[in-house]
Amino acid sequence: MGDLSTTDRTRHRRLREQGRTGRQELFDVLGAGFVCHLGVIVDGAPMVVPTVYGFDSEHVYIHGSVASRSLTGEGRTVCVTVTHVDGLVLARSVFEHGVNYRSAVIYGVPRALEGEEKLEALRLLTEHTAPGQWEYARRPNRKELAATTILAISLEEASVKIRQGPPDDADDPHDVWAGVLPLSTTWQAPVTDPSAGHDVPDHVRRRAGTRIG
Amino acid sequence: MGDLSTTDRTRHRRLREQGRTGRQELFDVLGAGFVCHLGVIVDGAPMVVPTVYGFDSEHVYIHGSVASRSLTGEGRTVCVTVTHVDGLVLARSVFEHGVNYRSAVIYGVPRALEGEEKLEALRLLTEHTAPGQWEYARRPNRKELAATTILAISLEEASVKIRQGPPDDADDPHDVWAGVLPLSTTWQAPVTDPSAGHDVPDHVRRRAGTRIG
Repeated sequence: MGDLSTTDRTRHRRLREQGRTGRQELFDVLGAGFVCHLGVIVDGAPMVVPTVYGFDSEHVYIHGSVASRSLTGEGRTVCVTVTHVDGLVLARSVFEHGVNYRSAVIYGVPRALEGEEKLEALRLLTEHTAPGQWEYARRPNRKELAATTILAISLEEASVKIRQGPPDDADDPHDVWAGVLPLSTTWQAPVTDPSAGHDVPDHVRRRAGTRIG
Repeated sequence: MGDLSTTDRTRHRRLREQGRTGRQELFDVLGAGFVCHLGVIVDGAPMVVPTVYGFDSEHVYIHGSVASRSLTGEGRTVCVTVTHVDGLVLARSVFEHGVNYRSAVIYGVPRALEGEEKLEALRLLTEHTAPGQWEYARRPNRKELAATTILAISLEEASVKIRQGPPDDADDPHDVWAGVLPLSTTWQAPVTDPSAGHDVPDHVRRRAGTRIG
């Protein structure tokens, strides 16, 4: 595995000790979630919207429609950020309070996919978000595919930041309890659509009780 | 409660049925989390970073340092987005798959706070993120306060989107199970800093097992 690029944007300027440079760490952060925050520029102002994503070793894939207002113009850089909040860092001083987290930031110029490449990216995105559903659900027909824009963004320019562990102010004279309050995100029991028949399929049922993030 | 403004940016263009206009719904979304995604423009490209926030009836408050690279220039609009992912919508067709979520998007020009206003905003931000810690932990001294930038962003230009309930493709001929796989985020048992004495204080202990979001 190579290292992540360090362009001017992704070189860590602040909190350098939280920076990570390994590609595997990027894949780990991307693999741990399915919703990213996409940043685009609309009429000169930043716009940040949540959207689902998928990825492979080269690209992150998103639906283009979420960015329709801004991505009609070609060649514009966007920012894709994936964040997992792992816990609250409760320090001795308010100043040292913080969050344990893992975060990936990717910059790139989106490319709209067509044909086989588009279908494969949509499969990746679907299977990353809802594993097993590409086989189980009805795949897109010609009309639905035409109505779907899938964008690929290169993983070449990316950075990962991770903060873990206890607070950093063990030497603070304020002598109180300090530690971390962890957060856990878990899939719950499936809720069947009242208008649907059939039992919950195994590939959905077995996610219940498992953690994400 | 008044309605949220509808500027050109916050008028819902897509997925109009998911838009909400009430101020209470904005406060509900802001109250349900403590990490936002801040969007700023740096060297002509969007940059999206996660950061903690607090709020009152007029403003959302963030630490300025996270945006230091971009907010040194005055008068620039930023975007603050808060998202709660409530579940995965597993439809009959891949095309109708989606996410149940609540999301708030706020646009504004940040104002750096000073003096009493700054201290009160820092208290709000701390108490929103880590309730009880403003009383329990050591408050910022003069030097720490000087090293902290707190930005206020008006809630005037904001929009809320919510998607709830089962998939929308009950009429799809593909006759399979469909429904929602809910997600739940819960505080876990506190992890004491090995170098800290004292028992876990009640205001921390009683959060364990409670949900956020």
